[in-house]
Amino acid sequence: MTQAYDTRRTAVLLVDPYNDFISEGGKLWPRLEPVAKEVGLVDHLRTVIASAREARIQVMFVPHRQWEPGDYDTWAHPNPTQRGIQERHSFARGTWGGEFHPDLQPQAGDIVIHQHWAQSGFANTDLDFQLKQHDISHVVVVGVLANTCIESTSRFAMELGYHVTLVRDATAAFLPEMMHAAHELNGPTFAHAILTTEELVSAFEAART
Amino acid sequence: MTQAYDTRRTAVLLVDPYNDFISEGGKLWPRLEPVAKEVGLVDHLRTVIASAREARIQVMFVPHRQWEPGDYDTWAHPNPTQRGIQERHSFARGTWGGEFHPDLQPQAGDIVIHQHWAQSGFANTDLDFQLKQHDISHVVVVGVLANTCIESTSRFAMELGYHVTLVRDATAAFLPEMMHAAHELNGPTFAHAILTTEELVSAFEAART
Amino acid sequence: MTQAYDTRRTAVLLVDPYNDFISEGGKLWPRLEPVAKEVGLVDHLRTVIASAREARIQVMFVPHRQWEPGDYDTWAHPNPTQRGIQERHSFARGTWGGEFHPDLQPQAGDIVIHQHWAQSGFANTDLDFQLKQHDISHVVVVGVLANTCIESTSRFAMELGYHVTLVRDATAAFLPEMMHAAHELNGPTFAHAILTTEELVSAFEAART
Amino acid sequence: MTQAYDTRRTAVLLVDPYNDFISEGGKLWPRLEPVAKEVGLVDHLRTVIASAREARIQVMFVPHRQWEPGDYDTWAHPNPTQRGIQERHSFARGTWGGEFHPDLQPQAGDIVIHQHWAQSGFANTDLDFQLKQHDISHVVVVGVLANTCIESTSRFAMELGYHVTLVRDATAAFLPEMMHAAHELNGPTFAHAILTTEELVSAFEAART
Repeated sequence: MTQAYDTRRTAVLLVDPYNDFISEGGKLWPRLEPVAKEVGLVDHLRTVIASAREARIQVMFVPHRQWEPGDYDTWAHPNPTQRGIQERHSFARGTWGGEFHPDLQPQAGDIVIHQHWAQSGFANTDLDFQLKQHDISHVVVVGVLANTCIESTSRFAMELGYHVTLVRDATAAFLPEMMHAAHELNGPTFAHAILTTEELVSAFEAART
Repeated sequence: MTQAYDTRRTAVLLVDPYNDFISEGGKLWPRLEPVAKEVGLVDHLRTVIASAREARIQVMFVPHRQWEPGDYDTWAHPNPTQRGIQERHSFARGTWGGEFHPDLQPQAGDIVIHQHWAQSGFANTDLDFQLKQHDISHVVVVGVLANTCIESTSRFAMELGYHVTLVRDATAAFLPEMMHAAHELNGPTFAHAILTTEELVSAFEAART
Repeated sequence: MTQAYDTRRTAVLLVDPYNDFISEGGKLWPRLEPVAKEVGLVDHLRTVIASAREARIQVMFVPHRQWEPGDYDTWAHPNPTQRGIQERHSFARGTWGGEFHPDLQPQAGDIVIHQHWAQSGFANTDLDFQLKQHDISHVVVVGVLANTCIESTSRFAMELGYHVTLVRDATAAFLPEMMHAAHELNGPTFAHAILTTEELVSAFEAART
Repeated sequence: MTQAYDTRRTAVLLVDPYNDFISEGGKLWPRLEPVAKEVGLVDHLRTVIASAREARIQVMFVPHRQWEPGDYDTWAHPNPTQRGIQERHSFARGTWGGEFHPDLQPQAGDIVIHQHWAQSGFANTDLDFQLKQHDISHVVVVGVLANTCIESTSRFAMELGYHVTLVRDATAAFLPEMMHAAHELNGPTFAHAILTTEELVSAFEAART
């Protein structure tokens, strides 16, 4: 699949690159490790971000809420994942697990979106607004998890009128069948392009010339 | 799994019950038929709606855009499903396929939400607003397709702060593995309850007393 | 005030040009007539739309809900305007008052947005989505009423990231002090440009060359 | 005007109680002082919040973005107010002006909503979501400025399906005619109740019994 990008109208959305998810020693890393290693997750995230920076494509960090004491306690109906976070304290503010992976840190010119409470980086945040104020029409959604935050962020992006690209080896999930669902069953119904990192980098390079 | 409902705060969202989807002779029926027959889709939809009416639970119809000539033609980037509709003319206004199934017709007191362009019944419609004006906190999302419109409507409902129930045999999809993805892989991350029609009806009956 | 427009990225949003509002004999015309005649409302709306068409600028109709029997009756809290419509049946579907002014009819290529229930043309409609699918970044908001639908649509447009232009003599209100509030007190805090029809037409003409 | 509240379904939204706005020495205080003193702004805000706490009504802080270096610099079209903040550095993070008034500090059980970029506390924040997760149907919107953030937050609240109360002497503006516009011209079209602090306190006291 080939796809053309206008570097001034495209953004890479890097979702939840927390140590707790993608770094050895992270709270959720043991569940993610098999798929993450099989697809080369962290290497590919480094490659996608480096390629975007070389092409002067906007990078936006789209972070989940960093857990704080009291979170979700007064809510009428936290979802199953949020009830899990209440116990596990995933991405806790002030801890190593709640920091971004050391190779995936914001740089000058990047934009860090408001934290999302659940799965979609658009819900209850300024992501749509920041995309408009930076004149972005095309989003490339990478990071974790393929079938939760990446998929919900991408489903919302499509409903909001954006062109959506998924990158099948710049994401991961707890089970291989979740990757299959994200990229073979569901993604093809809402995403405009589903690429490999290699294909994306070629497209970004082509867009630079 | 048991789940309690307040009949005054609950709504059943019936998504896309078009002849083209769920009736013999419909344009998409051949793709849906195997799963629909296996789960007893139309029987269960009849049962869910009848049970809701007996319990005086609000029923809302959540319909996809009825295709009209020119639809999507000037859009910057219709999604893959929309490009398919451009060719197939699914749910065309003024045709039998674009009518609701004869046993699933709106009655006095039901609310028909504005038509959605893509998968989520919340996106670009008055669904959230109508739920608030009717003081609904809990939504039960039934109809088709399990992994597209039902799942996107439910993901949005959760992000908007609603309690979300899926009903595993009151929906269908093109492939059994799409049902598995919707109810075993993805649903458990965002839905507050995943029931069978029988369990839902018991809960509605319990709520009436 | 001068303002430059890219004709491919600009849309004119024509809000609520119903006979009940802006035509002699309309239900609300007697309240609007003094200001409407003073500013030359209908003439200026004709001029704005004609100028947009000549420049091939997208025109979008942004209509209020056409009243139907039962509207608002089951709502928890209709707003004061909606309670008025329940009595007056303004913009009733199937009546002359619920039709657009004869000189302000949609033409091929125009887009008619879903009907809004209250004041903002963005709330509970597909307006934001249609703007994105047509790659619009700048909106010019004209029609009625200056301090209700025009102002709420414009406040929403700014919050959603659009560039917003008001046109002080292509709108009207029930009282002169409402016009003053819209254009001298409130508009300057959220609108990016506040022009006269003459200034807008000059800007559109300049954009054509 | 009398209005009844259910204490479990009501929230007070306290918008932008920053020193820069409402405290002597604040950057914008000189422009606000005449109206603020005339209506007794800070005294009435203290009274509203104290009354809400006694009735166990949820208090939510709805803060504007605290200015940081770089804010708005890369945006396509900041609005006139935002361009002013770029120069004035109003509500700068880490400064006294960017702190809440000492008598209007969050307490245990209060909720602090994500910061808004412009006027509406709902736009690009988690306000709607937090209201739903706390089962709130009625909002009382107080703080500043009457015709910008209070009015936009209230217009959005109505469009989102909430019952909206304005409090005419628990807000202020730069000019008396802006107060007139907010409470006599515009508010009556979208707000369900417009009270004085005294009337609100009586209603809250009645709701406690």
